[in-house]
Parts: sequence; structure tokens; C-alpha cells
Amino acid sequence: MTATSAIDFYFDFSSPYGYFASTVIDQLAARHGRSVQWHPILLGAIFKTTGMQPPVQYPLKGDYIWHDFARSARFHDIPYRRPSRFPLPTQAAARATLWAREALGSERAVTLARAIYRALFVDDVDISEPAEIVKIGAALGIDSGALEQGMQQPSIKEQLKTGVEQAMARGVFGSPYVIVDGESFWGFDRFAQIEALLQNGKI
Amino acid sequence: MTATSAIDFYFDFSSPYGYFASTVIDQLAARHGRSVQWHPILLGAIFKTTGMQPPVQYPLKGDYIWHDFARSARFHDIPYRRPSRFPLPTQAAARATLWAREALGSERAVTLARAIYRALFVDDVDISEPAEIVKIGAALGIDSGALEQGMQQPSIKEQLKTGVEQAMARGVFGSPYVIVDGESFWGFDRFAQIEALLQNGKI
Repeated sequence: MTATSAIDFYFDFSSPYGYFASTVIDQLAARHGRSVQWHPILLGAIFKTTGMQPPVQYPLKGDYIWHDFARSARFHDIPYRRPSRFPLPTQAAARATLWAREALGSERAVTLARAIYRALFVDDVDISEPAEIVKIGAALGIDSGALEQGMQQPSIKEQLKTGVEQAMARGVFGSPYVIVDGESFWGFDRFAQIEALLQNGKI
Repeated sequence: MTATSAIDFYFDFSSPYGYFASTVIDQLAARHGRSVQWHPILLGAIFKTTGMQPPVQYPLKGDYIWHDFARSARFHDIPYRRPSRFPLPTQAAARATLWAREALGSERAVTLARAIYRALFVDDVDISEPAEIVKIGAALGIDSGALEQGMQQPSIKEQLKTGVEQAMARGVFGSPYVIVDGESFWGFDRFAQIEALLQNGKI
């Protein structure tokens, strides 16, 4: 690994801890001269393989985790409001991000991804609806027709499918999941360890 | 709640993150003038209700979590060695702790609990064996005959069963699980939030 290898950031758009991570990961990387590759994934597909379920769907844990989402957001000073619809399908959001990267470049794709996360976890927008994704894109100056068609491209759908398979092949089973210099970290609560690794070159 | 109410610390003896928590929770409490009530629980019984499984038993997550145990121990500077037998039944350890509290007082019960955790996660002792628990007690000067019999007392077995039920009634679904001033925290990675609550009186 070279000192400048990128940080791989895997996230599902319906993951609150993934959203929290999305608000800080680029600054974290920049503090250590690194860049971030954003990889939207579909936890639904991954859970089918691992036999896991979304944490909100377990008894006891479900109630706790809703409380933890809001409390952790306050603790880390991140804007957050509980979405009305949750969990929800994130194919449209993930495909839009992949299309934006291909058509408009990584920087605008990340801007779109951040805006989608914020729409869900701050403005309570139903991001499972392609029409809502198009609106979010339009507010960023992304051509609505191009985005609407782009999300539907078979090559983009295939890219997402392949991306999820590649993620699982690297061990990804949750969101956020970060791989840097051969070390894998699951959860926003491991970001202090990621920072230590970037700082010290080992952990 | 008064400013001096105790911190409830729920833990299963086969939980590595519970072990990590056990190495710091009394000092954390003492920094803020609090005491800790240690409550051994049985996650096996709780998982039956919640439909969860030990994290090491899920595909992908299992491999990750073993790595995370060792890495988190290093990060927090806590001695740790991977146990040969894991997960394992923890009834004997939990009952010994409850008996010690009744017969010898809270302080010696906590000393015994810490020694049992260390035996499993540092010295690779099979703490599912009552004979090993008796040996651990003997090294602390606890009468072997009394401990051996104490663990078998129907009233102690009943106390553990009731304790697990009461824990679940309070929402406990994992280990470590800490309740303080009406706030519940699951996981060693929420200890910074517990400290913030103790420091600021709110979170």
C-alpha cells in the first residue's frame, strides 16, 4: 500500500450510521492527505446472504436503535430527523450516484450522494421514489431528463449489482464499512480507530 | 434521579466487549462520583427472545468481529487473547458472581467477576466449567467448598433467572448494556457518550 491509497467507503442510503459517516469521511481523509471512493451498496441483497436483518427489526434492539440514531446524531452534532418511511429501497439512490459518477465525475456524484442522504435523514423525503431523486439532482443543477434516463440504464443497474458482489467479496456486511490500507472497519463508531490508523500508519 | 444514582452494568461473561467494559467502568463511574451495580446476564436466553445470534456466528460479520475484538483491545490498551472455546455457557460464572455478592459483598463479587473475565479473555480458561470458577475463586481467597455449593443453590439459580427477566424488561438485548439516569447504552463503543452524560447531566 502506498501512503496515498484511497479510502473505500461502502454505504447504503437507508443506513443512518452510513449517513453520519458521510458527513465526516471526506474531511477525515483530507486531514491525512487521502481521498475517498464512495461505493453505494444494497444491504438488502447482502442481508440475504448473511442471514442478518436491519437492526430496527429486532425486538428490544429496534426500540433502542431508534433512540441511538437520534442521540448519536446530537452527540456528534449532525442534523437528523427520524424518517417516516424506514427502512426503504435504495436502488434508485444508488443507481443515480453511479450514473452521476460516470456522466459528471466523482465530485458531483459525491455531492449528489450527500444531498440524497440529507433528503432522507433531515428532510424526510421518500428517496425510494426515482422522481424524488430527480428533484434532488435538479436542485444541484443536474439535468432531470439525463438523470431519469441514466438511473434506468441497464449498464448502471449491472454496475450496482456487480458493485454489491465485489463488496461482499471484500467482506462488506454492513454500513458504513470502510477499507483502508488493508484494514476493514464496520460502523461509524470505529472512526476514531480509522483516524488512529491514518495518523500512525498502524493500529 | 439523584445525582448519585448508581450505574447499572449488564454483561455476559462470554462477551468480549463486555470484558472491555469491565476493565474501565468502575473508574469511569468514580470520576463522576458514581457507583456501579454489576449484573451478570445470559445472552443465550435473551437471544432466544429477540431472534438474534452471537455476532461471530453470522457469515462475513463473524470473521470481521474476531479481528475487531483483537484490534479494539489493542486500541484501548486492554490485554486480550482469543479464547479457544467461544462462545461458551456462562451460567457457572454468573451464578458464582451472584453467590459471592450475597455471601461476601459487592466488592468481592466484582473482584471475582473481573478475574473470571480475565481468565477467559487473557488466560484462555474454559470458564463454562464450575471447577475452573472454583479455582479462580480460590486464587482470590474464596473458600472452594462454599463457592462450589453456592453456585448450585436453587435460590442463586432463581436469582439469575429473575435477573435476566428483569434485564429484558428494562430493554437489555446485548452486552455490555449500561443504564444510567434513565438512558440506555449498548456497546463498549458508547462509553464516550456515557462519559458525556455523566459530565454534562444530559446527552
